[in-house]
Amino acid sequence: MTPRVKEILSWYESDNPGVRTNLARMLNHGTLAGTGRFVILPVDQGFEHGPARSFAPNPPGYDPHYHFQLAIDAGCNAYAAPLGFIEAGAATFAGEVPLILKLNSHESLLSDKDPISVQTGSVNDALRLGCCAIGYTIYPGSNLAGEMYEQIRDLAEEAKAAGLAVVIWSYPRGSSLSKDGETAMDVAAYAAQIAAQLGAHIIKVKLPTAHLEQDAARKVYEKEKIPVGTLSERVRHVVQSAFAGRRIVIFSGGAKTADAELLEQAKAIRDGGGFGSIMGRNAFQRPKADAVKLLHSIMDIYKS
Amino acid sequence: MTPRVKEILSWYESDNPGVRTNLARMLNHGTLAGTGRFVILPVDQGFEHGPARSFAPNPPGYDPHYHFQLAIDAGCNAYAAPLGFIEAGAATFAGEVPLILKLNSHESLLSDKDPISVQTGSVNDALRLGCCAIGYTIYPGSNLAGEMYEQIRDLAEEAKAAGLAVVIWSYPRGSSLSKDGETAMDVAAYAAQIAAQLGAHIIKVKLPTAHLEQDAARKVYEKEKIPVGTLSERVRHVVQSAFAGRRIVIFSGGAKTADAELLEQAKAIRDGGGFGSIMGRNAFQRPKADAVKLLHSIMDIYKS
Amino acid sequence: MTPRVKEILSWYESDNPGVRTNLARMLNHGTLAGTGRFVILPVDQGFEHGPARSFAPNPPGYDPHYHFQLAIDAGCNAYAAPLGFIEAGAATFAGEVPLILKLNSHESLLSDKDPISVQTGSVNDALRLGCCAIGYTIYPGSNLAGEMYEQIRDLAEEAKAAGLAVVIWSYPRGSSLSKDGETAMDVAAYAAQIAAQLGAHIIKVKLPTAHLEQDAARKVYEKEKIPVGTLSERVRHVVQSAFAGRRIVIFSGGAKTADAELLEQAKAIRDGGGFGSIMGRNAFQRPKADAVKLLHSIMDIYKS
Amino acid sequence: MTPRVKEILSWYESDNPGVRTNLARMLNHGTLAGTGRFVILPVDQGFEHGPARSFAPNPPGYDPHYHFQLAIDAGCNAYAAPLGFIEAGAATFAGEVPLILKLNSHESLLSDKDPISVQTGSVNDALRLGCCAIGYTIYPGSNLAGEMYEQIRDLAEEAKAAGLAVVIWSYPRGSSLSKDGETAMDVAAYAAQIAAQLGAHIIKVKLPTAHLEQDAARKVYEKEKIPVGTLSERVRHVVQSAFAGRRIVIFSGGAKTADAELLEQAKAIRDGGGFGSIMGRNAFQRPKADAVKLLHSIMDIYKS
Amino acid sequence: MTPRVKEILSWYESDNPGVRTNLARMLNHGTLAGTGRFVILPVDQGFEHGPARSFAPNPPGYDPHYHFQLAIDAGCNAYAAPLGFIEAGAATFAGEVPLILKLNSHESLLSDKDPISVQTGSVNDALRLGCCAIGYTIYPGSNLAGEMYEQIRDLAEEAKAAGLAVVIWSYPRGSSLSKDGETAMDVAAYAAQIAAQLGAHIIKVKLPTAHLEQDAARKVYEKEKIPVGTLSERVRHVVQSAFAGRRIVIFSGGAKTADAELLEQAKAIRDGGGFGSIMGRNAFQRPKADAVKLLHSIMDIYKS
Repeated sequence: MTPRVKEILSWYESDNPGVRTNLARMLNHGTLAGTGRFVILPVDQGFEHGPARSFAPNPPGYDPHYHFQLAIDAGCNAYAAPLGFIEAGAATFAGEVPLILKLNSHESLLSDKDPISVQTGSVNDALRLGCCAIGYTIYPGSNLAGEMYEQIRDLAEEAKAAGLAVVIWSYPRGSSLSKDGETAMDVAAYAAQIAAQLGAHIIKVKLPTAHLEQDAARKVYEKEKIPVGTLSERVRHVVQSAFAGRRIVIFSGGAKTADAELLEQAKAIRDGGGFGSIMGRNAFQRPKADAVKLLHSIMDIYKS
Repeated sequence: MTPRVKEILSWYESDNPGVRTNLARMLNHGTLAGTGRFVILPVDQGFEHGPARSFAPNPPGYDPHYHFQLAIDAGCNAYAAPLGFIEAGAATFAGEVPLILKLNSHESLLSDKDPISVQTGSVNDALRLGCCAIGYTIYPGSNLAGEMYEQIRDLAEEAKAAGLAVVIWSYPRGSSLSKDGETAMDVAAYAAQIAAQLGAHIIKVKLPTAHLEQDAARKVYEKEKIPVGTLSERVRHVVQSAFAGRRIVIFSGGAKTADAELLEQAKAIRDGGGFGSIMGRNAFQRPKADAVKLLHSIMDIYKS
Repeated sequence: MTPRVKEILSWYESDNPGVRTNLARMLNHGTLAGTGRFVILPVDQGFEHGPARSFAPNPPGYDPHYHFQLAIDAGCNAYAAPLGFIEAGAATFAGEVPLILKLNSHESLLSDKDPISVQTGSVNDALRLGCCAIGYTIYPGSNLAGEMYEQIRDLAEEAKAAGLAVVIWSYPRGSSLSKDGETAMDVAAYAAQIAAQLGAHIIKVKLPTAHLEQDAARKVYEKEKIPVGTLSERVRHVVQSAFAGRRIVIFSGGAKTADAELLEQAKAIRDGGGFGSIMGRNAFQRPKADAVKLLHSIMDIYKS
Repeated sequence: MTPRVKEILSWYESDNPGVRTNLARMLNHGTLAGTGRFVILPVDQGFEHGPARSFAPNPPGYDPHYHFQLAIDAGCNAYAAPLGFIEAGAATFAGEVPLILKLNSHESLLSDKDPISVQTGSVNDALRLGCCAIGYTIYPGSNLAGEMYEQIRDLAEEAKAAGLAVVIWSYPRGSSLSKDGETAMDVAAYAAQIAAQLGAHIIKVKLPTAHLEQDAARKVYEKEKIPVGTLSERVRHVVQSAFAGRRIVIFSGGAKTADAELLEQAKAIRDGGGFGSIMGRNAFQRPKADAVKLLHSIMDIYKS
Repeated sequence: MTPRVKEILSWYESDNPGVRTNLARMLNHGTLAGTGRFVILPVDQGFEHGPARSFAPNPPGYDPHYHFQLAIDAGCNAYAAPLGFIEAGAATFAGEVPLILKLNSHESLLSDKDPISVQTGSVNDALRLGCCAIGYTIYPGSNLAGEMYEQIRDLAEEAKAAGLAVVIWSYPRGSSLSKDGETAMDVAAYAAQIAAQLGAHIIKVKLPTAHLEQDAARKVYEKEKIPVGTLSERVRHVVQSAFAGRRIVIFSGGAKTADAELLEQAKAIRDGGGFGSIMGRNAFQRPKADAVKLLHSIMDIYKS
């Protein structure tokens, strides 16, 4: 147990030993074991975007076993997916990689301005499948956000009592926000704060832009001269917004991005005090050897 | 236990022995026993379309006993129906054919753009009636799809814990989809993926056309040159979209169809790697002897 | 136990002895005991239409004891009413007539195009009050029909487990139907089918007209030449639509009708294979002696 | 135990001894003990109309202890109030006056055409606070009436099992009714019937006018020549509509009224066979000595 | 135990010793221990307004430990915050300051005319984190107020049974109210009454203006000449409206205010018989030493 892992675990002072053990399992697994940094492989795009959009660029990805093996080969800290994908491989790969069961999902056949992600797995599922954590998406800014807050509250209480860690994907969306607002600096910081206040152990947000969405917030950013000009400054502000760094915050990149940019993003995450990356499409939509190489390059940045 | 059945059962690696036993019961029953192929008789049209539209073309079908006997005489792997129909024959035909209790139903007196199928049976009903599986319909694309996803999630968790298999009818419908979109290639593949991610053991979809409904999907199909020109190619793509063939996918034909076309469809299902057919109106809306003959012709294709 | 009663009980093959016992209690009670026919007295109009519209034509009917005594004097198979009416007499008349506790009610102060009948009694109430059955109204065709289907499903499961019979009043209403459609032939047959599929032991529908409401159904009635010209033919088709006669179907007349017509209706019900009548306003809105006389005339028809 | 009290208790023939005991406690308490008549003090106006509108005319009424003492000093049969008011005095005045815990409340900050009164207390609260009964308001005619019917059904079942009496305030309101319709003769009678059918032991309605609201009802009132010209006739018809007098029906006057009129109303209630008054603002919005004097005058009428 | 504290505890006559013990813990903690006065530090603005708007003016406030220490250093009676903030420090500061777990939260990314604050913590959370009380916000006047009343009713019943005190933030908002109406005299008094009737032990309202919002109320204020011209008169009227002073009522100031005005407000609260202040942004948005100094100045006023 490295001092850094011990320090991180100390922040979760109200959690039982079961939760701390599962956080430690993820912190101490894979290439980044012991560093306090994370690279997580999430594969929920089959449900979120459809199978062809997700897996046709690299057809072995249609097979759920592929992603377990990719996470293992790359030395990721954890692999996250919905019920069906986890059920299809949890026994074959039992004990080889920490698992996060994604408990809610949203499909894109619907054209919904105020989205809601509905429950598709349970805490009991996570336990019977040997997972370390539950995952849950909230959409701050959606008219239906309150339903998701209440549902994750219920699930998080149940998960914590069972010794499972809680990972919240906090993705601002909804009719109250502009398209740019979904990744605005103030909104991203707010999204991190909401997830932290809801009791998340690990928070996943998108990398923010320098855009400021809300008038009331913009005035404060300008008056207090909060530095948000560079990506690393923005990462630092998001981490600050998640209890001054007392909660693990990891960042996602979104759609397919050039490798050079991904590496620059990782450097900014590292320099801004972020805890790492969660990388899906940029990992599984290329041949496995290439994906492992890319993920190792990113891990090298986090180790440096 | 044939090697093929053992192989299929191995895919359900997270399920308890009870579930695997019930899957085996269906795989090892009837004319196609041991082949890994399915022909299932579903009779929920009385609730879905009304009695006269369903049974007047072959009036013995008004009697629930008729369908049990038809499934037995034809050697179907299983017979699926709602509560009332199963209750009316489960004791008389106990042990003669695996039963799937359809747990939700939708009536067509309502003119609803965004349909929901409501719960009309329970897991306890399935257990007390000696069924091997529960069946449930989802309508991906309906504004009310989320309610159905959450309900089948609850029911599936309960069913799996009780050793019952879970069969999902995944029928895209709703105001977000065009009429052609309901059977579009991309939508059918997506529907299969959603059912698989929800934890279905057996997935039932309609045979898709070559139409592509969603812009974001069409770009991928064209860019990646996914072959969907022939029916067997489309079947193959749907099976691929259900975890690269790790889940049983069966296909329905829909309304009454010429026999020659039905046989062609069965060949395409077989050639595309599909696991079989679920055939209702084409079976029970003709005299029983004719129905048995047709079903045997289809089974012959699956055995070849 | 007459052969006919034994035959009828044999149709309920999935029910426990408790349910069959309560069905037998109704089949073997009163003037029609042993015949397999029913005349049931229902008095839920106080809630449904208001007290004056219901009882002013025969004021003794304001008193709940009146209706128990009427059902007893006339030799009805059962008396059905909501919670308040049953509570007000269940001890005084304990054991003198089988009781059906009507578990939901609808008031007519509201002007609702898509009605819902809400729960006003429970299975526990039925048990503590010594009832043989629960009663429940569904409105197929209402936008809120699904809520009622799910509620009666819950209640029916609970009732059956407790050995109570389940009686469903299936009354098509709602914005999807024309006024004529509420009693159309196709709709009435569909309503009987839905109640049967929901697991009802006894189904109550209105006597249908020859009108055909739904285009898709009309085509089938015309193509298959389903005979629906006479009232007895229409009764026969409704009974056929309730599992080819494997479920008890009884018919209501509705508002006050001339006696001669009521007797003609009873003959048509008898000739069409219907199981009897449920008669409220035509019974309790006249002096008791007259009512007993009328009910006996109807029973005479069913005995002949 | 007077013969009249014994007679009244005999009407509640399906209730357990606990409920009958609590009914007897109210019937045998205070100035009207043993007469079968009631004067109840209800103080829920603080929640319903706001504190100043309720208590500024007689400021000692801001103090919850005031109302307990008023009910005791006047010899009321019972005191009814919401959770906060009862909690604030139940220990000080334990055993001195029967208490009715009002379980739902409606605030008038909202401008709602179809009101709903929401649950603000529980059966467990009533038990731990030593109450004899629960109170609950329904708004027949509101689009949300069904929600209230289902809630009071749940609560009444729980209360009766625990030996508590059930008092229903039945106040027609909602977009289906005209303002005059809220106190129309037909509507008031209907409101009493609904409360009785829901299983209320004691029913509280407003004194009706001679107005007839619903066309279908008016025809019957006119055809059957139901006498509703005088207030006592209207009271008699409401009592008749509550199971021909087998349920206790009490009447409220509403807003502040001249004393002479209040006494006239009490005489009409008495002459029409009503069971008494529930009097709030006319009691607590004047000095206590005056209020006691008025209440005694009313009680004198009921004793005569 | 001072006589004043004993007196205050005597008002909670229906509460169990556990609740009274927790009220005593807050009354007997910090600088104002034993005086019957309160200064509470609430920090829920991170969730309500976002992190930068809340904490950028004094960045140490991003750290949840900061606020525990501030409450301790200033000698506040209690510290109130949502789940995440409490979890992040409850073990480090165990036993050093009474805690109030805020059980519901509202985010300001949404533009909602009729707001609802959703549940984000539970009674079990409050117990496992060592809290003395639960906190809950209601929005009287919102179309969704009823949902909050029913939720706090459930939570309060559970909390009281577990010996926790109940603090209600009563903030009028919603489409039925004008902006001025949210802090109007009549509305503030009504808000205090509603919280008291819901069973709150401690009520938090905003300092009211002399504006009168509702016509029906204005008539009474004018007719009865209720004195509301000065702030201390308005405080007195609010306290009167909370059961004539039998419930602890504390006041919030809202947004950042000049110190001189804050001290004037405290004097008015004291002179009007208020029980103290709940002060968030005016405390934590300045350097800690300044905040402690300000809070001590306010406490000095309450001690005088």
